[in-house]
Amino acid sequence: MKKITRNIVFIVSGALAFGVVPSAAAFEALPKQPPIPKDNPMTPAKVELGKQLFFDPRLSSNGTLSCNSCHDVTGSGTDNRAVSVGVGAKTGGRSAPTVWNAAFLTAQFWDGRAATLEDQAKGPILNPIEMAMPDEQAVIDRLSSIPGYKEQFAKVFGGTNALIYDNVAKAIAAYERTLITPNSAFDRYIKGDKKALSAAALRGMKEVQAIGCTGCHNGVNFAGPALPMGQGFYQKFPTFTDNDYVKKFKLDEDVGRAMVTKNDADQHMFRVPTWRNVALTAPYFHNGSVKTLHEAVRVMAKTQLDKDLAGQQVDDIVEFLNSLTGEFPKQTLPRLPGTPNTALINE
Amino acid sequence: MKKITRNIVFIVSGALAFGVVPSAAAFEALPKQPPIPKDNPMTPAKVELGKQLFFDPRLSSNGTLSCNSCHDVTGSGTDNRAVSVGVGAKTGGRSAPTVWNAAFLTAQFWDGRAATLEDQAKGPILNPIEMAMPDEQAVIDRLSSIPGYKEQFAKVFGGTNALIYDNVAKAIAAYERTLITPNSAFDRYIKGDKKALSAAALRGMKEVQAIGCTGCHNGVNFAGPALPMGQGFYQKFPTFTDNDYVKKFKLDEDVGRAMVTKNDADQHMFRVPTWRNVALTAPYFHNGSVKTLHEAVRVMAKTQLDKDLAGQQVDDIVEFLNSLTGEFPKQTLPRLPGTPNTALINE
Repeated sequence: MKKITRNIVFIVSGALAFGVVPSAAAFEALPKQPPIPKDNPMTPAKVELGKQLFFDPRLSSNGTLSCNSCHDVTGSGTDNRAVSVGVGAKTGGRSAPTVWNAAFLTAQFWDGRAATLEDQAKGPILNPIEMAMPDEQAVIDRLSSIPGYKEQFAKVFGGTNALIYDNVAKAIAAYERTLITPNSAFDRYIKGDKKALSAAALRGMKEVQAIGCTGCHNGVNFAGPALPMGQGFYQKFPTFTDNDYVKKFKLDEDVGRAMVTKNDADQHMFRVPTWRNVALTAPYFHNGSVKTLHEAVRVMAKTQLDKDLAGQQVDDIVEFLNSLTGEFPKQTLPRLPGTPNTALINE
Repeated sequence: MKKITRNIVFIVSGALAFGVVPSAAAFEALPKQPPIPKDNPMTPAKVELGKQLFFDPRLSSNGTLSCNSCHDVTGSGTDNRAVSVGVGAKTGGRSAPTVWNAAFLTAQFWDGRAATLEDQAKGPILNPIEMAMPDEQAVIDRLSSIPGYKEQFAKVFGGTNALIYDNVAKAIAAYERTLITPNSAFDRYIKGDKKALSAAALRGMKEVQAIGCTGCHNGVNFAGPALPMGQGFYQKFPTFTDNDYVKKFKLDEDVGRAMVTKNDADQHMFRVPTWRNVALTAPYFHNGSVKTLHEAVRVMAKTQLDKDLAGQQVDDIVEFLNSLTGEFPKQTLPRLPGTPNTALINE
């Protein structure tokens, strides 16, 4: 069996190399506001425009898929499928991460290949197995054909060249920064309401520290320590490979971040995902191969910490993880601008 | 050239057979409330449940399509495609009609094969080229796996057997009866605001009467006269077939209502569609073959009335049709109940 120590796990993560020492005891409430980049300030008009774009299937080649199709904000912020279904029923190899609280992450996608929400938003629109627009210009051409968007981009971003792909991404990211779920039972507990957590959840809270889960799942989003925006917090998954789970759930078939960096040191490295609302985001892991949270807890303990958990431990940890389901803000349904008297999608 | 008189058009429609004589001068404002069936009274809790179901992709076999995917209430109530894309990227032959104001229709689907919104809602969920659920029981099994739905069905419909397919349809229909767009410029004009319509729209308003369009497009929804619920108002389309449009737009390839009734008299008979919000619902006709409203007006004049319109006539009629775009009610985004710790879609 290949065993490595916790320290080595942290070293390969690159976290120590940047002087950040994760704390295993870091329990923090979720702030109500995420970091806002200086070059993309939030305004109500920008958020409203971004919401329209987020819900608009005309950002896909055949007009059938919006951002919301796979990151459904009426629910978990995912599509609750193993992998998403793109234009033409194409599928990829990775599961859609939740958009809820993604604004707190310092890198996006499972492999961290986008530094910011703005960078992330640009990807799926052009991905041939996702929304499948041929190129940035095609997106701009299409949005420019919608009078209501032309007006809003001019108003929100100003100038004569407001409807550009960078601004599409900025508007979507501004909306996504409103998708925050504060006031979970855990958050209320941390802020002093000692009755907010059940006895089982409190036992689970101790377990995740004692076992070592919070060595990585810490910080406000339980996705790692605070790092500069653009610097992801990565871990090798699976770390311990000599167990049945790895083969059963095909956990070692995706080389993760190495696909982006072409660096062998990044083989099987993935951005540590959030625990917030994890009760709602099944199926689990980068390939969506594990259908229940109980099984996911067992798999993580075995593959990352080489531990076999007792049934009670798993139950308690799941109870704790359930306490991380937050309050979802009430939203109005957007109204998408039309193309009066004309069809925009011609197929 | 095959010519038939207007009277014959009405006789084949079946309208006269039921003693209803359409009035060519019938201009009526849209009521704020549609007819409510006695066996499905509206309650806020039922409407809210119906909205959740309308937006829930778990009503499709692979969890990717909701009612809203093809009848998008963030926009025109259609998908603005020629034909919709179902599970597995399958497509059919008919364009999705708008859900806005569908509550005023006395028959649903292009061929009127559903008498009510309740009947209609049951169709696409089970259609193998649409949402592709295998059967009613599979829908009930899936919804029964979602605790939040079980609770709501019990609360809304009562009894121990509340989660049945009939009630799924009732809840969706109750929500759809809130999708009404009053206060269009036309409606304000009819109610006395004589400045609500432009000079061009007023010319168009006279044209549609003079040419004969309102022989069929009359009533509150411009979809025909008031008929008993379940009795559709049908017309033959195309009526005049000796023109280039019929071949170009493949208008005679679909036998329409005859597919349902197996009655030769129903060959090429279609439910007369609404004019309300028609500016937003391109592309046009049962097969979505016509991309602009200007062209649709020319096609209708030629195929139904054997008339070639001048450019000014077309422009004026389009201006009038644009005055039928109503006010879309503000809605809250639904929150779909989850399946904590478990994936519901297993593929």
